[in-house]
Amino acid sequence: MTFSSAQDTHLVTGGAGFIGSNLVDRLLQGGCRVITFDNFSTGKRCFLEQALTNQNFSLLDGNLSDLNALIQTMKETHIDMVWHMAANADVRFGLNHPRKDLEQNTIATHNVLEAMRINNIKKIAFSSTGSIYGEPSVHPTPENTPFPVQTSLYGASKLACEALIQAYCEGFGFSGYIFRFVSVLGERYTHGHVFDFCRKLIDNPHELQVLGDGRQRKSYMYVQDCLDAMLLAVEKCQGKVNIFNLGVNDYVEINDSIKVITKRLGVNPKVKYSGGERGWIGDNPFIWLDTSRIQAIGWQPKVSILDGVLKTLEWLLSNRWVLTERSEE
Amino acid sequence: MTFSSAQDTHLVTGGAGFIGSNLVDRLLQGGCRVITFDNFSTGKRCFLEQALTNQNFSLLDGNLSDLNALIQTMKETHIDMVWHMAANADVRFGLNHPRKDLEQNTIATHNVLEAMRINNIKKIAFSSTGSIYGEPSVHPTPENTPFPVQTSLYGASKLACEALIQAYCEGFGFSGYIFRFVSVLGERYTHGHVFDFCRKLIDNPHELQVLGDGRQRKSYMYVQDCLDAMLLAVEKCQGKVNIFNLGVNDYVEINDSIKVITKRLGVNPKVKYSGGERGWIGDNPFIWLDTSRIQAIGWQPKVSILDGVLKTLEWLLSNRWVLTERSEE
Repeated sequence: MTFSSAQDTHLVTGGAGFIGSNLVDRLLQGGCRVITFDNFSTGKRCFLEQALTNQNFSLLDGNLSDLNALIQTMKETHIDMVWHMAANADVRFGLNHPRKDLEQNTIATHNVLEAMRINNIKKIAFSSTGSIYGEPSVHPTPENTPFPVQTSLYGASKLACEALIQAYCEGFGFSGYIFRFVSVLGERYTHGHVFDFCRKLIDNPHELQVLGDGRQRKSYMYVQDCLDAMLLAVEKCQGKVNIFNLGVNDYVEINDSIKVITKRLGVNPKVKYSGGERGWIGDNPFIWLDTSRIQAIGWQPKVSILDGVLKTLEWLLSNRWVLTERSEE
Repeated sequence: MTFSSAQDTHLVTGGAGFIGSNLVDRLLQGGCRVITFDNFSTGKRCFLEQALTNQNFSLLDGNLSDLNALIQTMKETHIDMVWHMAANADVRFGLNHPRKDLEQNTIATHNVLEAMRINNIKKIAFSSTGSIYGEPSVHPTPENTPFPVQTSLYGASKLACEALIQAYCEGFGFSGYIFRFVSVLGERYTHGHVFDFCRKLIDNPHELQVLGDGRQRKSYMYVQDCLDAMLLAVEKCQGKVNIFNLGVNDYVEINDSIKVITKRLGVNPKVKYSGGERGWIGDNPFIWLDTSRIQAIGWQPKVSILDGVLKTLEWLLSNRWVLTERSEE
């Protein structure tokens, strides 16, 4: 789709990350000017290779914990809108470092909002997560599901960010676009189950360790579908607080995904399950979001879950350097 | 009621505050040992006069922003349970200092949880608020009402605290007791509409400025009823995350409260309304919580809203020094 705000300048935090860098490319394709703010803790410079050839793009190396730097950045350029995509996006290892989600998600988001308020910038889109539904009682889970209970530090921190954005909308006249994602897959994907399984199977094609019982039901969305939805919502909706679930119409079992991955890799490993309904403490064994609200404004996902898994795998296999980088375990 | 954990040691943060100091007295009456941690930013030493005569009581002057002090405090005494009552309890002036709720509520609560985790203390009761329901679509509002949207920085910060506590319960085996209060009234009450109106009318009995149109519907709960409910829930409930609305069975209009106050003071002011449905940005014009859940375990409020207003007024008139202290406006 084309994005009508083509003459606008967009600040993308976390613009060197998986979803952020794909967003940067889409905004640039739409003719926008784009400024990216990233500390490259997980983002990668090479994801912006294409963007860096575009004169409408500028890249700033900076940390969201530095409120003054943020205020200054926003002061120096006229910015119409902020896409706040920077985050500690890891849900699984939160318990290993209980302050990380607070600092990199909650406090960082407060800094973004404060820098915006001080510079009179009032439009923000935010990458939230279906994790804020904890273990929901309703499936598929709608945006107005019964008030949930948090089960992870990641979900808790993202909920805190949402709440802050909502309060800034009410209190300071901001417009907020809050997108609650299922897991997102596709080009530049650098963590998650496809990543883990692919790396493990290249390392040892004879055996695959799987967390939980493999029966966890999950939804995965292709990154370009996700971006279509975000751009459409910002284009079409003018409400004060606009909240949308983003996901696909169905779900798969982890075992279904394993079949697709092993077939594509041409391996036949012995699968060993750690057991239990959940892969880790705070894992939600059944993620399936009701996306009627975003579909009502004219969006539909185009790529199925298993095609998304395959596209991701193709990208990983063409970019094996990603697999060899050290990740947290 | 008697509290069966009489042999236990309780840490009360904000124990010099309005609700905190009343809680301290109740715990001491029940035979518990009590340690209070307060920075006296809004708490008052004189509220602990009675407690200080009890050998089971100790008072620590400290700030929740100082994680190391908290860790050390919890290390030095065996503590069975934390009642985390310290907070920036002001909902109205949040927009004047957008970082205060983040620091004094969200980050402070994270510090309390971290100090507990490090010291292997796993039971926490928390004073949350009906403000986290924003402007709810259901009245009376139950705990599992549709996922709300935040309308104040105060509500946003308290929701963030709740979410953190819930995540610590899931991730670190804590037991959490989360109490969502309506406004609380009674002895040692030092801010809110009864306080404001009383002070204004003593200053000028001929005129009363009222925020909004006076038709706001609010619930007020007497502090001892509130404490009965909290102590009962901790005594009776063993769940991982125990969430309770605490309030009364009805609501009044601000105008009803004004009638009671002016009658007691023997004044007949001209009432001037600032107008509008809300008293300020983020004010919820209709607060009425569904308390079926706490009533199901055997609690009932004993003091009516207007009796609570009168009791509060009597206390203020007997403690006029409170009215002359400078408050934020």
